[in-house]
Amino acid sequence: MESYRKELWFEASRRRELINITSNIDHCLKESNIKEGLILVNAMHITASVFINDDESGLHYDYEVWLEKLAPHEPVSQYRHNGYEDNADAHLKRQVMGREVVVAVTDGKLHFGTWERIFYGEFDGRRKKRVLVKIIGE
Amino acid sequence: MESYRKELWFEASRRRELINITSNIDHCLKESNIKEGLILVNAMHITASVFINDDESGLHYDYEVWLEKLAPHEPVSQYRHNGYEDNADAHLKRQVMGREVVVAVTDGKLHFGTWERIFYGEFDGRRKKRVLVKIIGE
Amino acid sequence: MESYRKELWFEASRRRELINITSNIDHCLKESNIKEGLILVNAMHITASVFINDDESGLHYDYEVWLEKLAPHEPVSQYRHNGYEDNADAHLKRQVMGREVVVAVTDGKLHFGTWERIFYGEFDGRRKKRVLVKIIGE
Repeated sequence: MESYRKELWFEASRRRELINITSNIDHCLKESNIKEGLILVNAMHITASVFINDDESGLHYDYEVWLEKLAPHEPVSQYRHNGYEDNADAHLKRQVMGREVVVAVTDGKLHFGTWERIFYGEFDGRRKKRVLVKIIGE
Repeated sequence: MESYRKELWFEASRRRELINITSNIDHCLKESNIKEGLILVNAMHITASVFINDDESGLHYDYEVWLEKLAPHEPVSQYRHNGYEDNADAHLKRQVMGREVVVAVTDGKLHFGTWERIFYGEFDGRRKKRVLVKIIGE
Repeated sequence: MESYRKELWFEASRRRELINITSNIDHCLKESNIKEGLILVNAMHITASVFINDDESGLHYDYEVWLEKLAPHEPVSQYRHNGYEDNADAHLKRQVMGREVVVAVTDGKLHFGTWERIFYGEFDGRRKKRVLVKIIGE
């Protein structure tokens, strides 16, 4: 069994942002030289997500509006977590969108459907944060 | 390390439907001959889910009502994604229910609790769509 | 490839409770003697979650309030699942928080960001329930 790992850094310029990281993950997979196995991609921070969906700007706008409805940022005083911080909503949004994805590796490629793309979902940005890529297989 | 993969096709007759696919996954596991490892089951489409819960029709009705409350299909014009399409709500519902499950394989069986069953959750159906089964182990 | 499995039992004294199980999982990892691989931690019950977030009591209070808003326990008669049972809301809450986490194992340790902690999320407690730990790797 072979294994590979890499930590990728991202810095969103806004508080909330969805970043397509599919090409970064493709690059890791090539570097690993693993042909059959599983790849785990997870946020290393608890106010961010890694998820798979569509790279379509209208949909990304819909996610922003929807997540703000389900778990609004303001008023920040509505959350007990917001004593010294103001990011409680980001901890909630991350649970809806998920921490991680596990993707099959087949013939050295991400075994994806036509429209699957991997996103880093930032909900408390404007600072550097990490995503972990771990691959195991042969 | 051994690996196995199969793409399963499903066609829901309605827009939204929950299909128990546990026996399909059991069949794949037997076919793989893998006794110890991990099995990944994921939707290959971004308007569908694979998740684990109860095979109880009352609960499935509750999921339908609840998901329509959290992310209503209509009016379709409320979503920017719905220019040429009308499935934005399906992309949202899929995030609540999840893309994939990872299940332990022990002694050649799905290592499950008493009531765990695997479902394909369709939120934009009436066409053929795929689920990926990937198993690694020994 | 090596594999390891253990079922852990938890009994929450209240209906809903979040229990930090990181040290239990650390102990399993040491016992497995696996240095590189993946660890799966999942609830074996369909009214409970395993998830990763912050060990901060204010945030846990926020999760309680938020999940009760998204999927209220009462009135129990609002759910069709609640014929003989009263836990339909727990099946819904568990979908928001998730069934499982997959964590990378690197150099014999959980490959975690600074604030990542693993929680058992109980939404229908006051009875013994199980969490499965499965590790594969070398």
